[in-house]
Amino acid sequence: MKFAIETQGHSQVINITERVKECVENSQVQSGAVLVFVASSTAAITILEYESGIIKDLKEVLEKVIPENQEYHHHQKWGDKNGAAHLKAAIFKPDLLIPIENGKLRLGTWQQIVLIDFDEKPRQREVIVQVLS
Amino acid sequence: MKFAIETQGHSQVINITERVKECVENSQVQSGAVLVFVASSTAAITILEYESGIIKDLKEVLEKVIPENQEYHHHQKWGDKNGAAHLKAAIFKPDLLIPIENGKLRLGTWQQIVLIDFDEKPRQREVIVQVLS
Amino acid sequence: MKFAIETQGHSQVINITERVKECVENSQVQSGAVLVFVASSTAAITILEYESGIIKDLKEVLEKVIPENQEYHHHQKWGDKNGAAHLKAAIFKPDLLIPIENGKLRLGTWQQIVLIDFDEKPRQREVIVQVLS
Repeated sequence: MKFAIETQGHSQVINITERVKECVENSQVQSGAVLVFVASSTAAITILEYESGIIKDLKEVLEKVIPENQEYHHHQKWGDKNGAAHLKAAIFKPDLLIPIENGKLRLGTWQQIVLIDFDEKPRQREVIVQVLS
Repeated sequence: MKFAIETQGHSQVINITERVKECVENSQVQSGAVLVFVASSTAAITILEYESGIIKDLKEVLEKVIPENQEYHHHQKWGDKNGAAHLKAAIFKPDLLIPIENGKLRLGTWQQIVLIDFDEKPRQREVIVQVLS
Repeated sequence: MKFAIETQGHSQVINITERVKECVENSQVQSGAVLVFVASSTAAITILEYESGIIKDLKEVLEKVIPENQEYHHHQKWGDKNGAAHLKAAIFKPDLLIPIENGKLRLGTWQQIVLIDFDEKPRQREVIVQVLS
Protein backbone atom coordinates (compact mmCIF):
# COMPACT_ATOMS: atom_id res chain seq x y z
CA MET A 1 0.00 0.00 0.00
CA LYS A 2 1.11 3.57 -0.51
CA PHE A 3 -0.10 7.13 -0.47
CA ALA A 4 1.13 10.52 -1.65
CA ILE A 5 1.45 13.67 0.47
CA GLU A 6 1.94 17.30 -0.55
CA THR A 7 4.60 18.89 1.65
CA GLN A 8 5.99 22.38 2.23
CA GLY A 9 9.52 21.50 3.39
CA HIS A 10 11.56 23.43 6.02
CA SER A 11 11.09 20.58 8.50
CA GLN A 12 7.31 20.57 8.15
CA VAL A 13 5.87 17.85 10.38
CA ILE A 14 2.82 15.98 9.04
CA ASN A 15 0.76 13.56 11.12
CA ILE A 16 0.20 10.39 9.06
CA THR A 17 -1.03 8.16 11.87
CA GLU A 18 -4.59 7.82 10.53
CA ARG A 19 -3.36 6.93 7.05
CA VAL A 20 -1.16 4.17 8.44
CA LYS A 21 -3.98 2.92 10.68
CA GLU A 22 -6.24 2.53 7.65
CA CYS A 23 -3.58 0.52 5.82
CA VAL A 24 -3.16 -1.79 8.82
CA GLU A 25 -6.91 -2.32 9.16
CA ASN A 26 -7.29 -2.98 5.43
CA SER A 27 -4.55 -5.61 5.62
CA GLN A 28 -6.54 -7.61 8.20
CA VAL A 29 -3.26 -8.76 9.72
CA GLN A 30 -3.78 -9.48 13.44
CA SER A 31 -0.22 -9.82 14.69
CA GLY A 32 2.98 -8.53 13.11
CA ALA A 33 4.44 -5.15 12.28
CA VAL A 34 4.04 -2.35 9.77
CA LEU A 35 6.88 -0.63 7.96
CA VAL A 36 6.32 3.05 7.13
CA PHE A 37 8.87 4.28 4.57
CA VAL A 38 9.24 7.56 2.68
CA ALA A 39 10.88 7.20 -0.72
CA SER A 40 12.97 10.38 -0.46
CA SER A 41 16.50 11.35 0.58
CA THR A 42 15.35 14.67 2.10
CA ALA A 43 12.44 13.49 4.26
CA ALA A 44 12.04 11.07 7.18
CA ILE A 45 9.54 9.11 9.26
CA THR A 46 9.59 9.16 13.04
CA ILE A 47 7.41 9.32 16.15
CA LEU A 48 6.48 12.64 17.73
CA GLU A 49 3.70 13.92 19.92
CA TYR A 50 1.85 15.98 17.31
CA GLU A 51 1.70 19.25 19.25
CA SER A 52 2.60 22.71 17.92
CA GLY A 53 5.04 23.52 20.74
CA ILE A 54 7.27 20.51 20.34
CA ILE A 55 7.15 20.86 16.54
CA LYS A 56 8.51 24.39 16.93
CA ASP A 57 11.16 23.11 19.39
CA LEU A 58 12.23 20.45 16.90
CA LYS A 59 12.65 22.99 14.10
CA GLU A 60 14.70 25.24 16.39
CA VAL A 61 17.12 22.54 17.55
CA LEU A 62 17.59 21.25 14.00
CA GLU A 63 18.23 24.79 12.73
CA LYS A 64 20.79 25.29 15.50
CA VAL A 65 22.76 22.15 14.67
CA ILE A 66 22.28 21.98 10.87
CA PRO A 67 21.18 25.43 9.60
CA GLU A 68 19.35 25.58 6.27
CA ASN A 69 20.94 28.79 4.99
CA GLN A 70 24.57 27.79 5.09
CA GLU A 71 26.94 26.83 2.32
CA TYR A 72 27.13 23.05 1.95
CA HIS A 73 29.46 21.21 -0.43
CA HIS A 74 26.40 19.47 -1.81
CA HIS A 75 25.16 22.77 -3.27
CA GLN A 76 28.02 22.75 -5.76
CA LYS A 77 26.81 19.48 -7.26
CA TRP A 78 23.30 20.26 -8.51
CA GLY A 79 22.82 23.93 -7.78
CA ASP A 80 20.00 23.28 -5.33
CA LYS A 81 20.22 24.47 -1.74
CA ASN A 82 19.07 21.46 0.26
CA GLY A 83 22.31 20.21 1.82
CA ALA A 84 20.85 20.59 5.31
CA ALA A 85 17.82 18.55 4.26
CA HIS A 86 19.96 15.60 3.14
CA LEU A 87 21.91 15.63 6.41
CA LYS A 88 18.80 15.71 8.60
CA ALA A 89 17.18 12.94 6.55
CA ALA A 90 20.26 10.73 6.89
CA ILE A 91 20.17 11.10 10.68
CA PHE A 92 16.41 10.58 11.10
CA LYS A 93 16.21 7.88 8.38
CA PRO A 94 13.19 7.10 6.17
CA ASP A 95 11.93 3.96 7.91
CA LEU A 96 9.85 3.21 11.01
CA LEU A 97 8.55 -0.17 12.14
CA ILE A 98 5.56 -0.38 14.51
CA PRO A 99 4.07 -3.50 16.11
CA ILE A 100 0.57 -4.69 15.22
CA GLU A 101 -1.40 -6.30 18.06
CA ASN A 102 -4.96 -7.59 17.73
CA GLY A 103 -5.21 -6.05 14.28
CA LYS A 104 -4.25 -2.58 15.50
CA LEU A 105 -1.19 -0.32 15.61
CA ARG A 106 0.47 -0.75 19.02
CA LEU A 107 1.37 2.85 19.83
CA GLY A 108 1.76 4.61 23.17
CA THR A 109 -0.76 7.31 24.13
CA TRP A 110 1.31 10.24 22.85
CA GLN A 111 3.01 8.52 19.94
CA GLN A 112 2.01 9.84 16.53
CA ILE A 113 3.60 8.72 13.29
CA VAL A 114 4.95 11.75 11.46
CA LEU A 115 6.57 12.51 8.14
CA ILE A 116 9.11 15.34 8.34
CA ASP A 117 10.01 17.06 5.09
CA PHE A 118 13.38 18.79 5.41
CA ASP A 119 13.58 20.07 1.82
CA GLU A 120 13.63 23.75 0.86
CA LYS A 121 10.54 23.78 -1.36
CA PRO A 122 7.14 22.12 -1.77
CA ARG A 123 7.24 18.50 -2.88
CA GLN A 124 5.01 15.51 -3.33
CA ARG A 125 6.18 12.61 -1.16
CA GLU A 126 5.37 8.95 -1.56
CA VAL A 127 4.88 6.93 1.62
CA ILE A 128 5.03 3.13 1.37
CA VAL A 129 3.23 1.09 4.01
CA GLN A 130 4.22 -2.56 4.12
CA VAL A 131 2.54 -4.92 6.59
CA LEU A 132 4.68 -7.84 7.79
CA SER A 133 3.28 -10.81 9.69
CA MET B 1 5.45 -10.55 23.81
CA LYS B 2 6.08 -7.59 26.05
CA PHE B 3 7.62 -6.58 29.34
CA ALA B 4 7.55 -3.55 31.64
CA ILE B 5 10.57 -1.66 32.95
CA GLU B 6 10.86 0.86 35.77
CA THR B 7 13.00 3.79 34.65
CA GLN B 8 14.53 6.88 36.26
CA GLY B 9 14.66 9.21 33.23
CA HIS B 10 17.41 11.79 32.51
CA SER B 11 18.75 9.62 29.68
CA GLN B 12 19.07 6.54 31.87
CA VAL B 13 20.39 3.65 29.77
CA ILE B 14 19.02 0.18 30.56
CA ASN B 15 20.41 -3.02 29.06
CA ILE B 16 17.48 -5.13 27.84
CA THR B 17 19.46 -7.61 25.74
CA GLU B 18 18.72 -10.63 27.94
CA ARG B 19 14.98 -9.88 27.98
CA VAL B 20 14.90 -9.72 24.19
CA LYS B 21 16.98 -12.90 23.92
CA GLU B 22 14.45 -14.77 26.05
CA CYS B 23 11.60 -13.61 23.82
CA VAL B 24 13.45 -14.77 20.71
CA GLU B 25 14.21 -18.18 22.22
CA ASN B 26 10.62 -18.61 23.39
CA SER B 27 9.36 -17.85 19.87
CA GLN B 28 11.35 -20.81 18.46
CA VAL B 29 11.78 -18.85 15.22
CA GLN B 30 15.01 -19.96 13.54
CA SER B 31 15.43 -17.29 10.86
CA GLY B 32 13.88 -13.82 10.69
CA ALA B 33 14.09 -10.64 12.72
CA VAL B 34 12.88 -9.22 16.01
CA LEU B 35 11.34 -5.79 16.46
CA VAL B 36 12.00 -4.12 19.82
CA PHE B 37 9.66 -1.15 20.35
CA VAL B 38 9.06 1.14 23.32
CA ALA B 39 5.52 2.52 23.51
CA SER B 40 6.55 6.03 24.63
CA SER B 41 7.24 9.40 23.03
CA THR B 42 10.03 10.22 25.52
CA ALA B 43 12.08 7.02 25.36
CA ALA B 44 13.96 5.13 22.64
CA ILE B 45 15.59 1.82 21.74
CA THR B 46 19.07 1.64 20.25
CA ILE B 47 22.34 -0.29 20.31
CA LEU B 48 25.16 0.72 22.67
CA GLU B 49 28.10 -0.99 24.26
CA TYR B 50 26.76 -1.16 27.83
CA GLU B 51 29.74 0.42 29.57
CA SER B 52 29.63 3.21 32.17
CA GLY B 53 32.09 5.49 30.34
CA ILE B 54 30.23 5.63 27.04
CA ILE B 55 26.90 5.99 28.86
CA LYS B 56 28.32 9.09 30.60
CA ASP B 57 29.63 10.37 27.26
CA LEU B 58 26.21 9.92 25.67
CA LYS B 59 24.50 11.89 28.43
CA GLU B 60 27.05 14.68 28.08
CA VAL B 61 26.73 15.07 24.31
CA LEU B 62 22.92 14.97 24.49
CA GLU B 63 22.94 17.58 27.26
CA LYS B 64 25.22 19.79 25.15
CA VAL B 65 22.98 19.69 22.08
CA ILE B 66 19.52 19.44 23.72
CA PRO B 67 19.80 20.59 27.37
CA GLU B 68 17.11 19.40 29.78
CA ASN B 69 16.83 22.61 31.79
CA GLN B 70 15.92 25.01 29.04
CA GLU B 71 12.63 26.62 28.13
CA TYR B 72 10.90 24.67 25.38
CA HIS B 73 7.65 25.69 23.69
CA HIS B 74 6.29 22.28 24.60
CA HIS B 75 6.35 23.24 28.30
CA GLN B 76 3.55 25.74 27.69
CA LYS B 77 1.23 22.99 26.54
CA TRP B 78 0.96 20.62 29.50
CA GLY B 79 3.04 22.26 32.19
CA ASP B 80 5.53 19.43 32.28
CA LYS B 81 9.22 20.02 31.63
CA ASN B 82 10.15 17.25 29.25
CA GLY B 83 10.57 19.09 25.94
CA ALA B 84 14.17 17.87 25.64
CA ALA B 85 12.98 14.30 26.19
CA HIS B 86 10.52 14.46 23.27
CA LEU B 87 13.21 15.87 20.96
CA LYS B 88 15.77 13.22 21.84
CA ALA B 89 13.18 10.45 21.48
CA ALA B 90 12.15 11.71 18.03
CA ILE B 91 15.77 11.58 16.86
CA PHE B 92 16.61 8.16 18.35
CA LYS B 93 13.19 6.65 17.55
CA PRO B 94 11.40 3.88 19.47
CA ASP B 95 12.08 0.95 17.13
CA LEU B 96 15.00 -1.38 16.49
CA LEU B 97 15.05 -4.45 14.25
CA ILE B 98 17.65 -7.18 14.78
CA PRO B 99 18.26 -10.27 12.65
CA ILE B 100 17.62 -13.77 14.01
CA GLU B 101 19.98 -16.49 12.78
CA ASN B 102 19.82 -20.14 13.87
CA GLY B 103 17.25 -19.22 16.51
CA LYS B 104 19.46 -16.55 18.08
CA LEU B 105 19.85 -12.77 18.04
CA ARG B 106 22.54 -11.90 15.50
CA LEU B 107 24.42 -9.15 17.37
CA GLY B 108 28.04 -8.06 17.14
CA THR B 109 30.31 -8.68 20.13
CA TRP B 110 29.86 -5.23 21.69
CA GLN B 111 26.30 -4.61 20.64
CA GLN B 112 23.81 -4.45 23.49
CA ILE B 113 20.16 -3.55 23.08
CA VAL B 114 19.34 -0.62 25.31
CA LEU B 115 16.29 1.37 26.31
CA ILE B 116 17.06 5.05 26.95
CA ASP B 117 14.54 6.98 29.00
CA PHE B 118 14.88 10.71 28.33
CA ASP B 119 12.02 11.84 30.58
CA GLU B 120 12.44 14.03 33.66
CA LYS B 121 10.94 11.67 36.22
CA PRO B 122 10.58 7.95 37.01
CA ARG B 123 8.24 6.05 34.70
CA GLN B 124 7.13 2.56 33.86
CA ARG B 125 7.88 1.74 30.25
CA GLU B 126 6.34 -0.99 28.13
CA VAL B 127 8.61 -2.75 25.65
CA ILE B 128 6.97 -4.74 22.85
CA VAL B 129 8.96 -7.56 21.27
CA GLN B 130 7.58 -8.83 17.97
CA VAL B 131 9.28 -11.70 16.17
CA LEU B 132 8.96 -11.67 12.36
CA SER B 133 9.89 -14.61 10.17
CA MET C 1 22.55 -13.66 3.63
CA LYS C 2 25.56 -11.61 4.60
CA PHE C 3 28.66 -10.00 3.23
CA ALA C 4 31.88 -8.50 4.61
CA ILE C 5 33.26 -5.05 3.85
CA GLU C 6 36.70 -3.58 4.45
CA THR C 7 36.36 -0.09 5.90
CA GLN C 8 38.66 2.83 6.72
CA GLY C 9 36.73 4.45 9.56
CA HIS C 10 36.52 8.22 10.27
CA SER C 11 32.91 8.28 9.07
CA GLN C 12 33.74 6.66 5.74
CA VAL C 13 30.54 6.25 3.71
CA ILE C 14 30.27 3.10 1.57
CA ASN C 15 27.51 2.55 -0.97
CA ILE C 16 26.13 -0.98 -0.46
CA THR C 17 22.96 -0.60 -2.54
CA GLU C 18 24.03 -3.07 -5.25
CA ARG C 19 24.98 -5.72 -2.69
CA VAL C 20 21.57 -5.45 -1.03
CA LYS C 21 19.81 -5.51 -4.42
CA GLU C 22 21.53 -8.80 -5.26
CA CYS C 23 20.40 -10.32 -1.97
CA VAL C 24 16.80 -9.25 -2.61
CA GLU C 25 16.83 -10.66 -6.14
CA ASN C 26 18.37 -13.93 -4.98
CA SER C 27 15.63 -14.29 -2.36
CA GLN C 28 12.94 -14.24 -5.09
CA VAL C 29 10.60 -12.56 -2.59
CA GLN C 30 8.09 -10.41 -4.50
CA SER C 31 6.54 -8.38 -1.68
CA GLY C 32 7.89 -7.67 1.79
CA ALA C 33 10.87 -5.84 3.24
CA VAL C 34 14.59 -6.27 3.66
CA LEU C 35 16.50 -5.63 6.86
CA VAL C 36 20.08 -4.37 6.43
CA PHE C 37 22.04 -4.64 9.68
CA VAL C 38 25.69 -4.05 10.54
CA ALA C 39 26.97 -6.18 13.41
CA SER C 40 29.08 -3.44 15.01
CA SER C 41 28.70 -0.85 17.77
CA THR C 42 30.80 1.74 15.87
CA ALA C 43 29.15 1.62 12.44
CA ALA C 44 25.66 2.28 11.11
CA ILE C 45 23.35 1.81 8.12
CA THR C 46 21.33 4.67 6.68
CA ILE C 47 20.13 6.27 3.44
CA LEU C 48 22.17 9.00 1.74
CA GLU C 49 22.52 10.33 -1.77
CA TYR C 50 25.93 8.89 -2.57
CA GLU C 51 27.60 12.13 -3.69
CA SER C 52 31.00 13.43 -2.59
CA GLY C 53 29.72 16.86 -1.52
CA ILE C 54 27.08 15.64 0.89
CA ILE C 55 29.45 12.98 2.26
CA LYS C 56 31.91 15.78 3.11
CA ASP C 57 29.07 17.82 4.66
CA LEU C 58 28.05 14.86 6.81
CA LYS C 59 31.59 14.38 8.10
CA GLU C 60 31.84 18.08 8.93
CA VAL C 61 28.59 18.30 10.88
CA LEU C 62 29.37 15.10 12.81
CA GLU C 63 32.84 16.39 13.64
CA LYS C 64 31.32 19.66 14.86
CA VAL C 65 28.86 17.97 17.23
CA ILE C 66 30.87 14.89 18.28
CA PRO C 67 34.57 15.50 17.54
CA GLU C 68 36.81 12.45 17.16
CA ASN C 69 39.86 13.89 18.91
CA GLN C 70 38.37 14.71 22.28
CA GLU C 71 38.67 12.97 25.59
CA TYR C 72 35.74 10.62 26.16
CA HIS C 73 35.10 8.65 29.37
CA HIS C 74 34.96 5.54 27.22
CA HIS C 75 38.68 5.89 26.44
CA GLN C 76 39.52 5.06 30.06
CA LYS C 77 37.88 1.66 29.73
CA TRP C 78 39.79 -0.10 26.97
CA GLY C 79 42.50 2.36 25.99
CA ASP C 80 41.11 2.79 22.49
CA LYS C 81 40.09 6.19 21.20
CA ASN C 82 36.75 5.56 19.56
CA GLY C 83 34.29 7.18 21.99
CA ALA C 84 32.96 9.46 19.26
CA ALA C 85 32.38 6.42 17.03
CA HIS C 86 30.20 4.70 19.65
CA LEU C 87 28.11 7.85 20.15
CA LYS C 88 27.52 8.40 16.43
CA ALA C 89 26.64 4.72 15.92
CA ALA C 90 24.10 4.84 18.78
CA ILE C 91 22.38 7.83 17.18
CA PHE C 92 22.37 6.47 13.60
CA LYS C 93 21.66 2.86 14.67
CA PRO C 94 22.74 -0.31 12.82
CA ASP C 95 19.43 -1.24 11.19
CA LEU C 96 17.50 -0.11 8.12
CA LEU C 97 14.33 -1.67 6.71
CA ILE C 98 13.38 -1.10 3.06
CA PRO C 99 10.21 -2.20 1.27
CA ILE C 100 10.32 -4.81 -1.51
CA GLU C 101 7.79 -4.32 -4.32
CA ASN C 102 7.52 -6.58 -7.38
CA GLY C 103 10.70 -8.35 -6.34
CA LYS C 104 12.72 -5.14 -6.18
CA LEU C 105 13.99 -2.67 -3.57
CA ARG C 106 11.50 0.19 -3.37
CA LEU C 107 13.88 3.16 -3.10
CA GLY C 108 13.44 6.78 -4.16
CA THR C 109 15.57 8.09 -7.05
CA TRP C 110 18.31 9.57 -4.85
CA GLN C 111 18.20 7.05 -2.02
CA GLN C 112 21.28 4.90 -1.71
CA ILE C 113 21.86 2.44 1.12
CA VAL C 114 25.11 3.27 2.88
CA LEU C 115 27.26 1.83 5.61
CA ILE C 116 29.05 4.50 7.66
CA ASP C 117 32.06 3.38 9.65
CA PHE C 118 32.73 5.81 12.50
CA ASP C 119 35.69 3.94 14.00
CA GLU C 120 39.22 5.33 14.17
CA LYS C 121 40.97 2.59 12.23
CA PRO C 122 40.43 0.12 9.36
CA ARG C 123 38.04 -2.71 10.16
CA GLN C 124 36.22 -5.55 8.50
CA ARG C 125 32.47 -5.16 8.90
CA GLU C 126 29.81 -7.80 8.56
CA VAL C 127 26.50 -6.78 7.00
CA ILE C 128 23.51 -9.05 7.51
CA VAL C 129 20.69 -8.91 4.96
CA GLN C 130 17.46 -10.52 6.06
CA VAL C 131 14.46 -10.65 3.72
CA LEU C 132 11.04 -10.61 5.40
CA SER C 133 7.81 -11.40 3.57
